[in-house]
Amino acid sequence: MKNVPFKGIIAYPITPFDQNEKVDIPLFKKLVERLVVSGSHGLAPLGSTGVMPYLSDEEKEAITEASIQQTNGRIPTLVGVSNLTTEKTVYHAQFAEKAGADAVMIIPMSYWKLTDDEIVAHYDAVASKISIPIMAYNNPATSGVDMSPVLLKRLLEIPNVTMIKESTGDIQRMHYLRKELGEETAFYNGSNPLALAAFTAGARGWCTAAPNLIPELNIDLYNAVEEGNLEKAKEVFYKQFDLLKFIVNKGLPRAVKAGLNILGEEGGNLRSPLKPMTAKETEELKNIIKTLIN
Amino acid sequence: MKNVPFKGIIAYPITPFDQNEKVDIPLFKKLVERLVVSGSHGLAPLGSTGVMPYLSDEEKEAITEASIQQTNGRIPTLVGVSNLTTEKTVYHAQFAEKAGADAVMIIPMSYWKLTDDEIVAHYDAVASKISIPIMAYNNPATSGVDMSPVLLKRLLEIPNVTMIKESTGDIQRMHYLRKELGEETAFYNGSNPLALAAFTAGARGWCTAAPNLIPELNIDLYNAVEEGNLEKAKEVFYKQFDLLKFIVNKGLPRAVKAGLNILGEEGGNLRSPLKPMTAKETEELKNIIKTLIN
Amino acid sequence: MKNVPFKGIIAYPITPFDQNEKVDIPLFKKLVERLVVSGSHGLAPLGSTGVMPYLSDEEKEAITEASIQQTNGRIPTLVGVSNLTTEKTVYHAQFAEKAGADAVMIIPMSYWKLTDDEIVAHYDAVASKISIPIMAYNNPATSGVDMSPVLLKRLLEIPNVTMIKESTGDIQRMHYLRKELGEETAFYNGSNPLALAAFTAGARGWCTAAPNLIPELNIDLYNAVEEGNLEKAKEVFYKQFDLLKFIVNKGLPRAVKAGLNILGEEGGNLRSPLKPMTAKETEELKNIIKTLIN
Amino acid sequence: MKNVPFKGIIAYPITPFDQNEKVDIPLFKKLVERLVVSGSHGLAPLGSTGVMPYLSDEEKEAITEASIQQTNGRIPTLVGVSNLTTEKTVYHAQFAEKAGADAVMIIPMSYWKLTDDEIVAHYDAVASKISIPIMAYNNPATSGVDMSPVLLKRLLEIPNVTMIKESTGDIQRMHYLRKELGEETAFYNGSNPLALAAFTAGARGWCTAAPNLIPELNIDLYNAVEEGNLEKAKEVFYKQFDLLKFIVNKGLPRAVKAGLNILGEEGGNLRSPLKPMTAKETEELKNIIKTLIN
Repeated sequence: MKNVPFKGIIAYPITPFDQNEKVDIPLFKKLVERLVVSGSHGLAPLGSTGVMPYLSDEEKEAITEASIQQTNGRIPTLVGVSNLTTEKTVYHAQFAEKAGADAVMIIPMSYWKLTDDEIVAHYDAVASKISIPIMAYNNPATSGVDMSPVLLKRLLEIPNVTMIKESTGDIQRMHYLRKELGEETAFYNGSNPLALAAFTAGARGWCTAAPNLIPELNIDLYNAVEEGNLEKAKEVFYKQFDLLKFIVNKGLPRAVKAGLNILGEEGGNLRSPLKPMTAKETEELKNIIKTLIN
Repeated sequence: MKNVPFKGIIAYPITPFDQNEKVDIPLFKKLVERLVVSGSHGLAPLGSTGVMPYLSDEEKEAITEASIQQTNGRIPTLVGVSNLTTEKTVYHAQFAEKAGADAVMIIPMSYWKLTDDEIVAHYDAVASKISIPIMAYNNPATSGVDMSPVLLKRLLEIPNVTMIKESTGDIQRMHYLRKELGEETAFYNGSNPLALAAFTAGARGWCTAAPNLIPELNIDLYNAVEEGNLEKAKEVFYKQFDLLKFIVNKGLPRAVKAGLNILGEEGGNLRSPLKPMTAKETEELKNIIKTLIN
Repeated sequence: MKNVPFKGIIAYPITPFDQNEKVDIPLFKKLVERLVVSGSHGLAPLGSTGVMPYLSDEEKEAITEASIQQTNGRIPTLVGVSNLTTEKTVYHAQFAEKAGADAVMIIPMSYWKLTDDEIVAHYDAVASKISIPIMAYNNPATSGVDMSPVLLKRLLEIPNVTMIKESTGDIQRMHYLRKELGEETAFYNGSNPLALAAFTAGARGWCTAAPNLIPELNIDLYNAVEEGNLEKAKEVFYKQFDLLKFIVNKGLPRAVKAGLNILGEEGGNLRSPLKPMTAKETEELKNIIKTLIN
Repeated sequence: MKNVPFKGIIAYPITPFDQNEKVDIPLFKKLVERLVVSGSHGLAPLGSTGVMPYLSDEEKEAITEASIQQTNGRIPTLVGVSNLTTEKTVYHAQFAEKAGADAVMIIPMSYWKLTDDEIVAHYDAVASKISIPIMAYNNPATSGVDMSPVLLKRLLEIPNVTMIKESTGDIQRMHYLRKELGEETAFYNGSNPLALAAFTAGARGWCTAAPNLIPELNIDLYNAVEEGNLEKAKEVFYKQFDLLKFIVNKGLPRAVKAGLNILGEEGGNLRSPLKPMTAKETEELKNIIKTLIN
C-alpha cells in the first residue's frame, strides 16, 4: 500500500551529543547505519528515544537531513514532527517532506488537555499542508491525552492519516482498536514489553529503540510471527523480555546509550537534565546483555 | 503432574436462584451438565461468577456437593473456598476436600488490606489442613490486594500451593510472573479479554464463564494455541472478543443469565441486590450472540 | 433535627477478641465506656474499625446489644448493618432498630459492581422495613463502588436516608457534594487525615476510631471549629496529624489495639488473618503517642 | 523575609494573541494592569495560564519585560522560566533576573521521567546562575513527575530555592508537606478548588488565574482566613467554588478568555491548537458569573 510504507521493525535511533551537549551528527549517522545494516525495516528519527522535545528547530532539521542522507532509500524513514503548536507542527512536517521523509509521526502534544475537535483540527491543518502519510500516535503517558477509538476513527478520515501507533501498554486497547477501526487499519505497537502480544493481536509493526542493542532478536520475533510459529515467537520474546523491560524502566535514551557502550560502541553524551544511568544500573544492564549474547 | 490437575478451559457456572431467591440446585446441576458435555476441561463452582460471597455456608456446601455429583469425575473440579477469616476458609476447604474436590481456589479476601506476612500465614493455615492442591488467585479489583511476584513466590513454597491464577488484566504482569516464577509454574488467566495474549504468553488454562454461552469458540481458541496455529488463534479470538468484553463489562452473573435465556436455556433468577440487565443491554447481547452463531 | 441524631465526634470502637479469637463482650463494653466518658458525641459499633465483615450474625447481634446497653442513652448509637445481600441487610437493620439503635449505617458492599438502580433498590428495600434513619456511606476503597453525587441525591429522596458519610479522602469531592446536595444536607467525614479540611468545608461530624486513643484532641478540634477559631483548629489538627495518618496507614483495628496497649489499656486480640503490628511499627506508634501526651 | 517575596493572591495573566496568533503585548499590559489595580498581591506571567510552553524565546522575553514594566514595582513579579533542558532554563532565569523579576518559578518539565538526582542537579544549575529566589513547583499532571517531600526537602537546601508551590490537588499532601518540611517553609497552593482547605492548612499564598475574573472574591477569601474568620471564609469560598471548578475543568486560557469577554473585556485570541470554548460552555460560564456579580 503506497500510503502505508511501514511494517516490521521500525527502529528508533538516539540523538547523541558531544562533550558540550551539542548534537553530534557524524555519530548520529554512524548509529543510523548500524540500524540499517542490521536489518531494521524502517527508521524513525526524532522520536522520544531521539529526545526530540529537547532539540532546537535547527537541530531537528539537521537530524532529519542526516537520517535521509544516511538511509539513502534503503529503508523508509518516519520523521517525528510533533509540536505543541499547530504552526510549528506544520513547519516541521513540511521540512520533513521536502527533505525526503516517507512519512511523519505526530502525537498531539498537549500541555493544555485538547478537546477532540482541537485534535482533529490540528491533524487536519498539518495534513492539508503535506502530501506524505501521517502516523497518528497515541501515548497518554507522554502527551497527556488519551485518544479514544472514536477520535482515532475521525483522524483516519483525513486522507493522509493512514497509520496508528498505540503505546498505552494495554493489549486490551489494541484488541479493541482492531475491532473498532477494522482489521485493514495499519496499527503499530509502541510498547516494548507488549511486543509479542501486539504482533499476536495483528500489529503491522513494532516501533522500538531495542534494535540499537539487540536487532537480531527483534527481527527474529517479527519473523516468527510472520511464519505463524507461536512457539518460537514465545521463546524469542521471553529471551529479550528482561532487556525490553529494563530499557523502558530506565528511560530509552539513557539505557540505549549505556547499552551501546557495553557493546563497545560509541553512544555520545546526554543533554541535561538527563544524566547517565548509575554504575549499579549499568552493571544490571551488562548482566542482561551478557545472557543475550551468549 | 498430580498436583496440577487443570489445563485448558476451566468453566465457571453461575449459581441460579428460584423466584424466592433461594439457590436452585436442580437447575444448577443442569447448567453444570451443559458445561461438561460441551467439552470444558475443568469446572470451577463458587467463583465470582457463582456469586460465592452472596451465599450462606449451607448454600456453598450444597453447591459443592452438587458439582462433584454432577461432574462425577468426568472433568476435575476446582472449588472456591475464599473467606475473609482464616477459620472459615479452613472450614470450607476441608469441606471441599471431603466432598471430593480436586483442588480449591483461594483469593486473599481482604476488607482490611493484609500484609504479605498475614497472607502467607493465611494460605499456610489452610494448606496445612488439607491435602488437595490450592490455586492462589490474584485479582486486586475484587480482593483489594495486589499480590506481588515476590509474594506469589513465597506462596508457591507452601507444598500444596501449586497453581497461580492471575486476573489483573495486564499482560505485562503475566510476562513478568512467568519470568520471575519460572516457566514450569502453572499459571492461569482469569481475564477474559486477555485470553489470546495469555495463552500466547504461556498460560496453562483460562478460567472463564464464557463456556456457559460459547463453549466451542473457547475450546477452539485453546486448540489453536495448542497446535501453535497463530493465525487461527487470532481469528477465533477476535470472533469472540465482543462477547468476552460485554460479559465482563456487564458483570458475569447478570450477563450469563441473560445469555442463557437468549440461547433458550433457563438461567434462573439473581439474588438481590443484583438485578437483571436492562432490556437495552439484553438486546445488545442478543445482537452479539446472533453474529457468533451464524 | 429528629432524623439527624449525630454531630461532632462519632467514635468507632474496635471489636476485641479473646485468646481463641472469640468476641470478648465484657472487654468490648469496657472500651465503649471509655469512649462515652471521654466525651465522644456518638458511638458507631460494627464499622470497619469493628471488623464487622469478619463477624458472624450472632456476633454482630451481641455487639449491637452490648453497645446499646452500655451507652444506655447517654450518646446516640449508629450501628453498621451493611451486607452483600439485600436480605441480610434488612435482617440486621431490623435487629438494630429493635435493639434500640438511633440509626444504621449502610455502605453498598458490592462484590459485583452495582448499578445505580440496584443501589437505590437496595437502600429502598431496607428503608421500607425500618423507621430509624439511615446514614448512606460512600467509600469506594472498601465497597468497590463510588457513589456519584447524582446517586446520593436519589438516595436522599428515600425518606429515612438522612445522612451521608463520605470517605473518598478527597476534599474536592466534599466541596462538590455540599454544592450539589445543598448546605442543609447532613454530611459526615470518614477520612481521618481530612478532619480539618472537612470540618472547614462544613461537615457535621467526624466518624473516627481516633477517640480510642486521643479523645481530647479530637474533641478539641471539633470545638475549635465550632468556635470558628481557625488558628486553634489548625494547631490542634497538626498536633494529631501524625497519629491520624499512622492509624489509617497501618489499618485501624491493628493500630488501635496496639495504641490501647501502649496507653496501658487492654485491647484484646485480633481475628486471623489480621495479625498485630510488628515490633518496629509499635515502636513508631509509641513515639507518636508520647509526643501527644506530653 | 527578603527571600520569600510572595503571599496572598498571586495572579496569573493569560497571554493574549492577535488575529494572526501573534502575541498581543499592548493587550497583555492592559490585562496585567487590571490584575494590579484590583488588588492582587503578586503577578505570575508565563505560567500555564499564560501558555508559556507554546511561546518562542522572543515571545517569552517580551512578556517578561512587559510584565515588569507594567507592574512597575507595585506588586512583586514571579516569572515562569521552566524548560525541558537545563541550558534553556538557565537562559530564561537569567533573562528574568536582568529584566527585574522578583523571583522565578520552575517546574521540572520532564518528557523523560527525571530521577531525583537529575532534578536536584537541574535546580542547582539554575540556582547557581541567578541570585533571585526560586519557587519550586510540583504538578505531576503537567510535568509528569511527582516530587516527593524528600526531594522537596533536598531542593530547599539549595540557598535560593525558598518557596514551594503544590498543585497535586490533594489536601492530604499539603498537610504532609507542612509536617515534613516544617511550618516555616513558605508553601503555596496552585489548585483552585483547594483554595479554602489550603489556606486553612497554612498555605502562604494562592497561585491562581481566577483574579482575571473575580478578584474581589479571591481577595475576600484570603482576608477572611487572615482574620481567622472561618465562617466567612467558608461562605466566600463556596460562593466562588463553581467558577473555580469550571475554569479548571475547561482549561484556564480558554475559560479566562471567555470570562473576560463575558465581563465586557478584551481577551484576545488563543494560539492553535487551542480553540475557544463552545457556545454551550460559554453560556454555562455566563450563568456562573451572573450569580456571582449580583
